[in-house]
Parts: sequence; structure tokens; C-alpha cells
Amino acid sequence: MMTDSPTPLTAGAAALAPLFRNGAADPLAVTRHYLDRIATLDGHIRAFTQVLGDRALADASASADRWAAGKPLSDMDGVPIAVKANIAVAGAFWHAGIGAYRDQVADRDADCVARLRAGGAVILGVVNMHEGALGATTDNPWFGRTENPLRPGFTAGGSSGGSAACVAAGMAVAALGSDTMGSVRIPSAYCGLVGYKPARGAISIDGVIPLSTSLDHVGVHARTVADCALVAAHAGARVMTSPGSLSGLRLCVPDWRSRVEAPDFIWAACDAAASRLLSAGMVSSKADLAGYQPGQARRLGLLVSEVEGLNAHAARLAQGDEGFSTAFLSLLRWAENQPATKVAAAYQGLDEIRQAGLAWLAQVDAVLLPTTPQTAFAFGQPAPANQADFTALADFIGCPALAVPSGLSPDGLPLSVQVMGRDAGTVLAVAAALE
Amino acid sequence: MMTDSPTPLTAGAAALAPLFRNGAADPLAVTRHYLDRIATLDGHIRAFTQVLGDRALADASASADRWAAGKPLSDMDGVPIAVKANIAVAGAFWHAGIGAYRDQVADRDADCVARLRAGGAVILGVVNMHEGALGATTDNPWFGRTENPLRPGFTAGGSSGGSAACVAAGMAVAALGSDTMGSVRIPSAYCGLVGYKPARGAISIDGVIPLSTSLDHVGVHARTVADCALVAAHAGARVMTSPGSLSGLRLCVPDWRSRVEAPDFIWAACDAAASRLLSAGMVSSKADLAGYQPGQARRLGLLVSEVEGLNAHAARLAQGDEGFSTAFLSLLRWAENQPATKVAAAYQGLDEIRQAGLAWLAQVDAVLLPTTPQTAFAFGQPAPANQADFTALADFIGCPALAVPSGLSPDGLPLSVQVMGRDAGTVLAVAAALE
Repeated sequence: MMTDSPTPLTAGAAALAPLFRNGAADPLAVTRHYLDRIATLDGHIRAFTQVLGDRALADASASADRWAAGKPLSDMDGVPIAVKANIAVAGAFWHAGIGAYRDQVADRDADCVARLRAGGAVILGVVNMHEGALGATTDNPWFGRTENPLRPGFTAGGSSGGSAACVAAGMAVAALGSDTMGSVRIPSAYCGLVGYKPARGAISIDGVIPLSTSLDHVGVHARTVADCALVAAHAGARVMTSPGSLSGLRLCVPDWRSRVEAPDFIWAACDAAASRLLSAGMVSSKADLAGYQPGQARRLGLLVSEVEGLNAHAARLAQGDEGFSTAFLSLLRWAENQPATKVAAAYQGLDEIRQAGLAWLAQVDAVLLPTTPQTAFAFGQPAPANQADFTALADFIGCPALAVPSGLSPDGLPLSVQVMGRDAGTVLAVAAALE
Repeated sequence: MMTDSPTPLTAGAAALAPLFRNGAADPLAVTRHYLDRIATLDGHIRAFTQVLGDRALADASASADRWAAGKPLSDMDGVPIAVKANIAVAGAFWHAGIGAYRDQVADRDADCVARLRAGGAVILGVVNMHEGALGATTDNPWFGRTENPLRPGFTAGGSSGGSAACVAAGMAVAALGSDTMGSVRIPSAYCGLVGYKPARGAISIDGVIPLSTSLDHVGVHARTVADCALVAAHAGARVMTSPGSLSGLRLCVPDWRSRVEAPDFIWAACDAAASRLLSAGMVSSKADLAGYQPGQARRLGLLVSEVEGLNAHAARLAQGDEGFSTAFLSLLRWAENQPATKVAAAYQGLDEIRQAGLAWLAQVDAVLLPTTPQTAFAFGQPAPANQADFTALADFIGCPALAVPSGLSPDGLPLSVQVMGRDAGTVLAVAAALE
């Protein structure tokens, strides 16, 4: 179910504008192509919770007119994308994968959607996610299971599972997701995509149903680093600088083998990626984030996410808890009953990690880690507790991070490595060198 | 009880090095002078909880030898300072104004003290503070009331009341304090001093008994901006840049008359200071931190400080609560009993303020506000609830801020204005223009 070999109809986000400009592709035909793919495939993949077909066609048609008149709104004009169900699209259902909100219609676009639309992007529809963004399987009790397009019966990851699946299945050029502890990068890794979480606030979380206002980030899923960068830029995260070359940039590849349990092929993929970067002129740095314990940090992040999630949904829960699954509610209720001092200690711990992390990233130009400790797994298998143990750190620090495909596992599933650092331009350049 | 008119013995921190260098002053004589002042005056002022006389004399003598040999350690060599009782001085009592720790001796210097010592600074002693740094009167049930040197029977402010009082009474050249919601700037304002709280982390809080690790800052009390900058630099907060002139810098003087209750002469002092800055070439900016409600924000900051304070003292409290006053304990216990969601909401609210504050400070070069909504008041009067309503914002944002004397109130007590901004060099330059 991978996309067909590239044609003008299936070109990536960054490739479309030149094709639209020279007439080799037509925005309306491209949007029709993606809507056709959705009609054909989404019965199996179940990425979309709402397809905005008529609107997308009308928008694509207007885009076609603009390109024909030589007056496109931006390089995103006519590029068809999908939007995670917690990000507001005016007039569309906006439910964050929670049953209680299934009939809620957004009355305005989220800031990032408004910016993309102002650039002419075409919104194909709203995509599925793990309920409330609190989990990484997208086995959603209200909107169904989103399948991994690369292996039937396997999870696409989460919480932005629909975002990754729709792009991996060639049902959208790119998709917006959100990332609180890894929710853009994990599904991108499981689906063989690039996933980009810009620095905190680089893309506004205005118009996003929060899980955790302290940790939520908006990010992008696409097939290439350039596509991610383009969509992120038009969503608000414009990057002004880029290193001329990687030569001399300091690369840290922390050895977390004793901190995160993962099979050898996961570490090997990361080591191979590191070798390529060193061959490209980067120099090895031994600076480490001493004392960082991913498992411990994860528990702090989860507690904060869960209590803040409860605050996010307090008004609705005050009316009753129908439409919230037992699994989701039990996480929120557990957090509700934690003592004030433990909650404060979680914030204090995350703050300490952020301060130490910023000091660490000041000493290196890029950090390379695996994206996840495992590949996609079958529905029905218990979700590994450590899925976010490589990704959450970049949310805690608030720094830019990308997941980049990095070959296949012994059983043929995508592997992924993660690049993080203090500067978005540098992180994007390092990630691009790994493609 | 103001200091005598300046002589080589009583010169400020920044003036001493030249005098030491040319032999017009002698470090040992200067330290003797301050120890004499302490012996004479501190029976009334009660700023010191421990005078380190012999050590100070030995250190001053070593400093004198270095200056005589032309090999001073830094421009701080031989400068006698005092240290707030929550900041560790190796071998000295380190109790944060809490009875339970009154016999605790620090086994190493706090990072900032170690840096100052490495530069040759002489530590005269440890000074009193509001119990646990949670309050602004320094009416301490274990270590006594610290008097305002400018008016007997009046508070020196707090929580760094001893730090401000000892400098104002001419018992130290400068003093280290700590500032969680205003604890350096409030007592500096009440005592007619400059108080400088550098950006968060610019001076490490390593070796400081925390109130709130999320909000605590180390700062400096001195008689001039230059003195504050010098001591802060040697404590870790080195400033690399300074604007050549104030010309063209954007000054915001937010009108908070409807947000903070304060008498007219408080606002008038701030307006007068603004006029001077505009005459010096700054240009007025109308950018505001829309929606910031100081009283509401204060409650969030207090809740976070109290819960984190409980975490800071949990180990000791587990052994029993002797040595904690009822007043202090009741604040901590109240916080302990708040629901997890309310605690999380406080962190979320402060985070929102920080993000909005950073965006605001990106649009202006300096913000001018009063430092406090009132002048020093008599012991026995209830402490005004809004004492920190102008100062706490800079702790929430984590930006540099200075309190600068700004004339006298109708009844002859010091007034103070506060300069804050994103860049320390700019803030220091603006503050210096107000002296």
C-alpha cells in the first residue's frame, strides 16, 4: 500500500509548486487523486474520521485558477493535506478522538490551519488519533482502529496515527499532528515517514484541543524532510538560518543502552546513521545528559499530561463522563487523585530536565537517538510502556526534533532515527543528510 | 543610620578595586570597618544571624597581601559582602530562617558563593530572612525582626530583609539575596537600595535551600547599579553586551492603575522616572501584556511556591514539625491539601504568563513599573497582600529585573521603580540612567 512511484499527481509537498507553476500538474487533479485514494483505501486504513471532499475540490479549483493566473498564494497553494482531529478546521468535526465531542464542530480554524489555508493549502479532511492524544496505538474506541498501511493488523502508532497512516498510504501529501511526548514522531517512525516536531510554540497550539498545554506541540508528517519543513514553515515555524554544510558540527550519539530496553537492530540503525553523519564531516561529541532516566522522566510527563488532560476536559466531565472511554478516564482519574506535592514534584522534575537539556544542547549541534525502542506492533499486543522514551525528551526541553526513516527491521518494518538540537535549521539539515 | 558619606572605607563594590590598587584603601581596614559597623549597629538592626568575624579578617588579610603583591584574584578581591541565610557558606549556619535548621552547617559553598570567593570576596556573615523565604516582612519567629535602617520599627521587607538592611545600614558593601516573587527587589525598595534579580539561572541556585525550584532566583542588593552588576557578574551572571546609548530603545510603561491598588505618589514616581528615560532618548511603546492580572497571578505563584516549599522541607517535616512556625506551616499545609488539578492549573497559568511575557518583551526593550505598591510599613501592621504584585512577573517570565531608588514618599520613605526586559545589558543600562 505504499504510494505509487512519484508522478506529478503524487509529488511531495515541496515538489508540487514547481509542477503547478509549469503546468505539469493541476491542483484540482491532484486533490481528485488524493480523494480517490481515500475512497479506495480508507475503508481498510481508517485514517479519516471526516473527508471534506466537496470543500477540498472547491478549494483546489480556486487554487487551480490562481496558478493559472500566475497568482498563487504561496508554495503551499493547492497542496492537499490532512489535519489531526484535535486541531480545529472551521466547519469540521473537532473531537480529539473523544466520543463526547464527536458532534462538536469547530467555528474557526486553528492558527496553524488558518495560516496554511491563507497559503492556499487544501484540507482533505480530519484524521483519527488515539483518544484524547493520550496513548500511542490509535486503537480508538469511538472512531476505530487506524491500520498501519505498511502491515495489515499492525498499529500506525499514535497519538497522531491517522496523520501518519494517511500520508504513508498516499492519501495526503502531508498531515498535521500534535506531539506531547512523541505523538508525531512515533507514528511517523512506525509508518516509515519523516515526522517533525518544531520547537515549542514555533507552531501555535491555538485551536488545538489540549492534552497538556505545558507539553503540547504541533508537528508535521510527510515523506521528506523538505516537505515537513515547508508545511511547518507555512504553519508558523519559519526557519531563517541553515548551516552551509555539516562539516565540523558536533554530533552527540548518547549511549542509552542501559537506560532504554531495545533490540540490537534498533541501536544498529542509529549507529549506522551516526556513521553517515560523521562521514559527512560532523565531529563526535561525548557531551551527555548525565543522569537522565527516560523511564522516570516518562512517569513525570505522563502525570503532568494526565492532570492537565483532566483540566482540559473538566467542563465536559462536569456534565457526565459518557463519551470518555474507561481506559482514558482511568488514567485521568488516577492523576486526579495524586497528592499536590507529587504533582508539583513532577513539574519540578520536568523543569530540571529542561534546564539541564538546554545546557546540554548548548554544547552540541545535534543529538542522534533511535526514534522508538521498537517497530510497529500488532493490535492486540500490549503497547510497550517505553514507546516514548526516546521522543519525550524533546518535548520536555521544547527543542526541535525530527524522526527520519532509517532502513528496515529484520522483519521488514520501518526503522527510524531521531535528530534533535537547539536550532531548527541545523536539525533539519542533519535530518536531510540522513534521507 | 544611613552610611557615612563615602570614604575609601565605605566605597561601593565597584569603587573598591581602584582604591585597593592604588593603595588609597586597604582590604583589611575595609573589612574591619564593616565588622565595627556590625558590632555597633546590628544590636538594633538585627540583620545578621551569624557574623564570621575571624574568617572575614583572615580572608581580608590574604586579600591585602594579594593586592600588595599586585596579584588580586579579581575586581571583587577584598570586597566584603553578606549572604542570605538560605545560601550555603561552607562552615556557616545555613537555615533559611527556619528554626528546624538552625544548627545546620553547610559543608560546601553554594555555587555563587564559591565563585565570589574564588574572586576574593570576603564573606562578613550570614543574614536574616523571612522564614523559609515565604513572606516579605522578615519578622522572623526564630531569628528576630530585622529593622529597616531608615526608620525604626518598620520592616526592611523580605524575604531578603537582612540582605537589604545590612547594606542600607552600611554593614556590608553588598549582599546576596534570593527572589522567588520579589524577595530581592521588595526589601531593596523598602531600604532605598538597588536590587538586581538576573535572568533565571544566570546565577545558579545550586546550594540555595529552595522555596520553589521553579521560581527561585539568586540576586544582589547594593547601593548602585554598577555594584549590583559587578557582584552578579562574579556570582555567575556575566553580561556580555550593553547598548551604546538609550536612544531609540523602546520603553513600555504599562498602566496598571486598575490592576494594582497603590497610592498616587507610587504612580507619580514611576511616571517621573519614565519622563527621564524618554528625555534620555528612549521611545514610548504601547505594547502591553494584555490580560495579565497581578493578583490572580500572585495566587498561582504562591500555590506553586507553597507546594514546592513543602517538597523542599518534606524530609525534615517527616521527622516532625518542630522548628517550623505555625504561620509558615499553615501555608504549606494549605497547599498540600489542594487538588492535583488546581496545582496543575497553577503551573499551566504561570507557563501561559511566561510565554505571553516573552512575546511581550520581544516587542520592547525595557518595561518600567513601580517596584512595590507601598513603602515600608510598621511592624504590627498587617502585611499588604499585594506587596509582590509588580515584582512577581519577572520571576514568572524569568527575565532580568532591577529595583532602583526613585525619591521619597510624602512621609520620607524610599520609593523605587523597577526596570525589566529580555536583555540584562539593556536592563542594567536603563536602570543606571535612573540613578
